[in-house]
Amino acid sequence: MDLTTRIDQALEAALSRSEAADGPPRLAAATRHAVFPAGARVRPRLCLAVALACGDDEPALSDAAATAIELLHCASLVHDDLPCFDNSPLRRGVPTLHIAYGERLAVLAGDALIVLAFQGLGDAPTRQPDRLPRLLGLIGKGVGQPHGIVAGQAWECEPQVSLRQYQRAKTGALFAAATMAGAAAAGGQPAQWRALGEWLGEAYQVADDIRDVAADPLLLGKPVGRDQALGRPSVAAEQGLLGAIAYFHQLVANAAAAVPDCGGAQRLRALVRAESERLVPAALCAELARAAA
Amino acid sequence: MDLTTRIDQALEAALSRSEAADGPPRLAAATRHAVFPAGARVRPRLCLAVALACGDDEPALSDAAATAIELLHCASLVHDDLPCFDNSPLRRGVPTLHIAYGERLAVLAGDALIVLAFQGLGDAPTRQPDRLPRLLGLIGKGVGQPHGIVAGQAWECEPQVSLRQYQRAKTGALFAAATMAGAAAAGGQPAQWRALGEWLGEAYQVADDIRDVAADPLLLGKPVGRDQALGRPSVAAEQGLLGAIAYFHQLVANAAAAVPDCGGAQRLRALVRAESERLVPAALCAELARAAA
Repeated sequence: MDLTTRIDQALEAALSRSEAADGPPRLAAATRHAVFPAGARVRPRLCLAVALACGDDEPALSDAAATAIELLHCASLVHDDLPCFDNSPLRRGVPTLHIAYGERLAVLAGDALIVLAFQGLGDAPTRQPDRLPRLLGLIGKGVGQPHGIVAGQAWECEPQVSLRQYQRAKTGALFAAATMAGAAAAGGQPAQWRALGEWLGEAYQVADDIRDVAADPLLLGKPVGRDQALGRPSVAAEQGLLGAIAYFHQLVANAAAAVPDCGGAQRLRALVRAESERLVPAALCAELARAAA
Repeated sequence: MDLTTRIDQALEAALSRSEAADGPPRLAAATRHAVFPAGARVRPRLCLAVALACGDDEPALSDAAATAIELLHCASLVHDDLPCFDNSPLRRGVPTLHIAYGERLAVLAGDALIVLAFQGLGDAPTRQPDRLPRLLGLIGKGVGQPHGIVAGQAWECEPQVSLRQYQRAKTGALFAAATMAGAAAAGGQPAQWRALGEWLGEAYQVADDIRDVAADPLLLGKPVGRDQALGRPSVAAEQGLLGAIAYFHQLVANAAAAVPDCGGAQRLRALVRAESERLVPAALCAELARAAA
């Protein structure tokens, strides 16, 4: 089974467990809207790829970890899109949750997804419950205060912020949690996998900055030019578009080099390369270089 | 150590672990604002009282369970107070979080509290990690979809809702999670403790309805008459004030009767009685009966 199929099945199972005939139907529909149609699922695929590289001896626990990472990512998108933040009308090519279901259900669906993420770690049948404390710690750290994605979003509410600190928390932290939780779920050494997640997370954030300036809104599935409109810190604004692209490629190279030697190393390096091309296609780089010349 | 001191120390420790000099300071302050000054702390005290009745052999785990219950309660209050829901200006006698720190930090502080609640279960030093799956399940069920407090709040977004279903989810679910998690943390039998939590939760919700109609806003620390203004289902609206008071006393009696025979039974029944008097004082009942006569 490929990783995308595996994660989508695990997400579907988690959502189904959270639904019941006597629960509020609009909340259930809103929660589904936040998780499907699929985004790139890059974080949970990364999580599973690392789990496989570490032996994946408790696949239900790896699935739960990858599911938690993706549900928490979806929750953060729903809350980031709210009128009080980005006020985004479009996400993944469809109306954002607050547009489709109203602001109240957008707040609640985000909350429900956070709860479901952690609840699912307890639902996983495993002979290794002693791995749970570490998983809870790693995933909580990637999401919460003081250095996770919630903290990253909160830097937008501060009068002073360093670009690096902001991006590490807003994006890098959950990527690092994805690789480290994959290792922890499979009984591996999380610390060995931190650098891969951190480099890839930074690359992803820089790619987002580049695409916000350069990409076609139809391809991106969401409005472009938001960072500038919102006065948000951005590598593209700081270093110019070509500088940002060069920086992106350096980060991707660092990520590939950070994959520890192991059975799954080749698969992981291939995943890193494929993500690089998906995020900032070589054809786009060539076109931008021509335009700048 | 009394239960209130114990829970406040555990909450303080959890908040401190989520703070760092290089985290976003306004988010840290907002999160604290949601947890202190203290509310009645009835849910975590109940959780600890049940843990003690079950032997409390892993006090760090009981503390983490009680802390999680209270942090999740605080998170739900913060999000319920948001402009898109109750738009409440006042809570526990001080400005609500979105008034004090803005709507964005209110959304994020709620999110951070939910994460911290679950992360704390992993942080608790324990020799019994095999209790974690059950704890995650019980607490997740009390908070999430389809029957927890998030689902309860979501019933306000549905065109059709039964009063009982709404109240069970909005209030009863977290009380039941509090008693059951207290038992699970101490290695007891959660199922034996469900009824106590459910009866008390329903009593608490009915008391809230009564106080919303009858209490002094200065004593309550929040505006009154909100249920009616918001067209929210309410026992007081359905059965009249005296009917609601009689129903409340029946629920309290059911709760006291549901305490299983055990070492801590007396302490638990005393807690139930004290809560009853705190929520709906005998003097208030007498005054209302006189006014109705």
